Amino acid sequence: AYSTKEDSTTRPVGRYPIPNKKDMPYDIVELMEEVEMKTGFLPNVFKAMSHRPAEFRAFFAYYNAIMNKDTGRLSKADKELIIVATSVVNRCPYCVVAHGALHRIYSKQPALADQVIVNWKLADLSDRDLAMLEFALAVCRADNITEEHFQKLERHGFDREDAWDIGMISAFFAMSNRIAHYIDLRPNKEFYTMGRVP
Amino acid sequence: AYSTKEDSTTRPVGRYPIPNKKDMPYDIVELMEEVEMKTGFLPNVFKAMSHRPAEFRAFFAYYNAIMNKDTGRLSKADKELIIVATSVVNRCPYCVVAHGALHRIYSKQPALADQVIVNWKLADLSDRDLAMLEFALAVCRADNITEEHFQKLERHGFDREDAWDIGMISAFFAMSNRIAHYIDLRPNKEFYTMGRVP
Amino acid sequence: AYSTKEDSTTRPVGRYPIPNKKDMPYDIVELMEEVEMKTGFLPNVFKAMSHRPAEFRAFFAYYNAIMNKDTGRLSKADKELIIVATSVVNRCPYCVVAHGALHRIYSKQPALADQVIVNWKLADLSDRDLAMLEFALAVCRADNITEEHFQKLERHGFDREDAWDIGMISAFFAMSNRIAHYIDLRPNKEFYTMGRVP
Amino acid sequence: AYSTKEDSTTRPVGRYPIPNKKDMPYDIVELMEEVEMKTGFLPNVFKAMSHRPAEFRAFFAYYNAIMNKDTGRLSKADKELIIVATSVVNRCPYCVVAHGALHRIYSKQPALADQVIVNWKLADLSDRDLAMLEFALAVCRADNITEEHFQKLERHGFDREDAWDIGMISAFFAMSNRIAHYIDLRPNKEFYTMGRVP
Amino acid sequence: AYSTKEDSTTRPVGRYPIPNKKDMPYDIVELMEEVEMKTGFLPNVFKAMSHRPAEFRAFFAYYNAIMNKDTGRLSKADKELIIVATSVVNRCPYCVVAHGALHRIYSKQPALADQVIVNWKLADLSDRDLAMLEFALAVCRADNITEEHFQKLERHGFDREDAWDIGMISAFFAMSNRIAHYIDLRPNKEFYTMGRVP
Amino acid sequence: AYSTKEDSTTRPVGRYPIPNKKDMPYDIVELMEEVEMKTGFLPNVFKAMSHRPAEFRAFFAYYNAIMNKDTGRLSKADKELIIVATSVVNRCPYCVVAHGALHRIYSKQPALADQVIVNWKLADLSDRDLAMLEFALAVCRADNITEEHFQKLERHGFDREDAWDIGMISAFFAMSNRIAHYIDLRPNKEFYTMGRVP
Repeated sequence: AYSTKEDSTTRPVGRYPIPNKKDMPYDIVELMEEVEMKTGFLPNVFKAMSHRPAEFRAFFAYYNAIMNKDTGRLSKADKELIIVATSVVNRCPYCVVAHGALHRIYSKQPALADQVIVNWKLADLSDRDLAMLEFALAVCRADNITEEHFQKLERHGFDREDAWDIGMISAFFAMSNRIAHYIDLRPNKEFYTMGRVP
Repeated sequence: AYSTKEDSTTRPVGRYPIPNKKDMPYDIVELMEEVEMKTGFLPNVFKAMSHRPAEFRAFFAYYNAIMNKDTGRLSKADKELIIVATSVVNRCPYCVVAHGALHRIYSKQPALADQVIVNWKLADLSDRDLAMLEFALAVCRADNITEEHFQKLERHGFDREDAWDIGMISAFFAMSNRIAHYIDLRPNKEFYTMGRVP
Repeated sequence: AYSTKEDSTTRPVGRYPIPNKKDMPYDIVELMEEVEMKTGFLPNVFKAMSHRPAEFRAFFAYYNAIMNKDTGRLSKADKELIIVATSVVNRCPYCVVAHGALHRIYSKQPALADQVIVNWKLADLSDRDLAMLEFALAVCRADNITEEHFQKLERHGFDREDAWDIGMISAFFAMSNRIAHYIDLRPNKEFYTMGRVP
Repeated sequence: AYSTKEDSTTRPVGRYPIPNKKDMPYDIVELMEEVEMKTGFLPNVFKAMSHRPAEFRAFFAYYNAIMNKDTGRLSKADKELIIVATSVVNRCPYCVVAHGALHRIYSKQPALADQVIVNWKLADLSDRDLAMLEFALAVCRADNITEEHFQKLERHGFDREDAWDIGMISAFFAMSNRIAHYIDLRPNKEFYTMGRVP
Repeated sequence: AYSTKEDSTTRPVGRYPIPNKKDMPYDIVELMEEVEMKTGFLPNVFKAMSHRPAEFRAFFAYYNAIMNKDTGRLSKADKELIIVATSVVNRCPYCVVAHGALHRIYSKQPALADQVIVNWKLADLSDRDLAMLEFALAVCRADNITEEHFQKLERHGFDREDAWDIGMISAFFAMSNRIAHYIDLRPNKEFYTMGRVP
Repeated sequence: AYSTKEDSTTRPVGRYPIPNKKDMPYDIVELMEEVEMKTGFLPNVFKAMSHRPAEFRAFFAYYNAIMNKDTGRLSKADKELIIVATSVVNRCPYCVVAHGALHRIYSKQPALADQVIVNWKLADLSDRDLAMLEFALAVCRADNITEEHFQKLERHGFDREDAWDIGMISAFFAMSNRIAHYIDLRPNKEFYTMGRVP
């Protein structure tokens, strides 16, 4: 059974009750076990979303469609960087900490996510990465997106399909950040240290 | 074939190309035809999202899971009102116009959405509806959500499952508004007049 | 007698008492009857301002001097569009709804005001109209107005007298919006549907 | 003839040409001469507005109706303080400097306007005056005005007619500040030193 | 003994107690007497900071290092103008009033500080002075400072050492303004009138 | 000699040249060597500030007076937490990273600074610590500080001398953050990993 309390600490994973494993639908248990096997622990977002099985399925199916697609110029590290940079704007503890960890793992750069968290414009980023984050943050702020936004991306090698990918990740995490806020979703403690030492 | 241009006007439905109906996967055509039959026209969001079939499926499956669920205290009109109020914050033409129309249809109140669009706090709303929108807008702004937010909802008859529903709709349209911005999604002209006269 | 309550609804026209017609000065009654004859109903701003006859006279004299002047390049529809776009910034229900209706009447464009209300930069406007609204909104926000502002207007065919006209309408409604807020002025229900169908 | 340039300095009174006295309508010249006689110099707002005689008349008639009315609890110094506090929000050089001077004259307090200009909440003001400015600034910012706003005023001895007066002055100068911005209206140099020494 | 109350008014100089002169360390008394001799009165910041002798010494040593250095292109009036313009952003009554007075003394321009207080961009400033304040205000707002900021200064004759001087004064008064806020430091009444008449 | 470039990376420590050790005044070298001995490396702020020896001395003397004083209820970890929380507001990479590291060292809590960096209100903090940060952030934002601020601190065991300490640290780092911005001060890479593993 997954507990609403994490380990020995007193603070629960989130605000909503988490069902016992034996009461969960089989497909959800299966996905959780696969993730836990792969990651070494079960990220709290899976526990929290299992409170609503239909939404659990919809959320992770969507996540999968945009994060695990094969096409386009965005690397796994690029995607995580977009999530970190936009989740900071929404001050989302879960997404910043969890995806900061994933960025360290994928990028092998242990300090870059920390830099982006404080001030992305001053981080040690290439012009390409700055352009990518600039677009992602314009979407994150719900700015009007103009032809100039697309042209700037194109000058750094991203075509309109890449722009869609960047925008969709930013938009999806605009949703995720807000879900995390009303659930009061807490990061697993493992995330804080993942990928810090090579 | 669905066109990227709407009717006789020159402005396209959105920024991305829309596939010909004959090139679309069958399940997508089927859903589109069902919607068109029911609504009398095909809302442009279906055309625009068909550019990415996998994301089309994920988007509408998620939408369906939260908008068409049977449980909870939110009426269809409540849900549309949440979408209107939060989409105004993000200045999303498609979502405000389309869901303003749907609110008029479901609520039979032809002026209320227009009032909420200008200034929700001065609209002719019950205290219950004001509390509902206040919570939805706190989620929309990515505010920290505290126990006080939930208690205020409870004083107006919403339990924590209703809070989840309100929050999830607000979060989902935080995503939708941003997708609409990078797609430059335009409302069908039918939406402007729907439900204005009883 | 004009009532502080509109028709059968319970919400009053505004926060301040409205004098009985028989107690009003003759010139005010005369103006009201002329307006009611022309419009088909008496817009609530006339009722609300009659609480202060001297200010009623000053307000409508000023309004008349800027809205009904013969000179300049601003059409009646242009003027209403300026009022709609700036009153949205101040979230003024009366001015947005009433002047949105007048814009539909004068422009014969039933959807444009609704578009400007949500997001003027994404509305179906000519470059000339965008430049006009950009200047009006700079004045509305009390920005410093520089030579660049005037030059941009000139590139779209507006001279400095037109700039004054745009600026004055924006400034006058900066006042009107604020008066409407402390009076809690409510739009007549007729405005919501005026000009929606050709 | 009134010049667009003030005295020996090179910076003009404003952006628009000022007609020669001999070309002005008689009533405007008459009012100007009366003001100049009384004040010792002609405030630049009279020169600038004379560019548009009809608007000159409307502007000063309105100003007169609200600033020189006999009823209510607002002293002349109160009214000037409202103008100073709200014009600071709009960063209007003319209104802050000219009405700061008038406040010093009417209140006999040489430092108070300067304090309000920097930080009204920390100025040496009575609770009554703080409540008056709080209401004026709520109107100035185009906030929704609620019953709580009126009740707070009432606790400090202002009734709803006084509230109208405070609100109207704030609203009128919301307009004036914006006119001054597009005209680029400059304060007469006399204002800077008026009333500083008893 | 220096009093926490200024003269005959009832409002204290600040929120913290001020030691009696006889209880102060000798070096602090000495500095105070020197300043009082030179200025004609003892500015309240000296009284307030004497509550913490170690911090008094550190504060005035730092102040002296940046305000009384001989090198660079900033005149005494330039430095005071930077302090006025940045302290307005933080709405600091003491710093705006005291350094506005010092600016009038050093610049012999009795109206310029008042103009900068209301709206620095509309003040009668040279392009050089506008560039200086623009840099100071970027530092004041804690903006990211880029090469473009330095290049703009260079186009107006300031080298990188001058940029450091401008930035350091802005940064030091970012601190001073905040200290003044928690101390509730009040300006000496003498400052209001200093340098107003030539 | 201290280099403007850190180690093998190409990005310099800051924007201004750093003198060779042999050209530095003896007291500065002495302080640097003491710090390097104690910390294991020389934090870049010492290198960057050595460009201006007089300001170096003033800066570190002030820092020492407030950070190393013996009195008051603030622990070393408390002080570092204040610096982290306020430096995040100003998006200062150096101060957030360096003082986040120092907080981990002093507090033995490896995740708390990371939590405060993302969203201090949601961090695992005691009510006392939340009150401390709330006051520090009010000073950081240059808010007016009222009696209510002090009373709230008192309810959590902080007296007015502690309030001064909290305020002074916040004010001093308001300065430091801004200096770091115009210097473009980069954190030493050691800081990113310090104190992460017990």
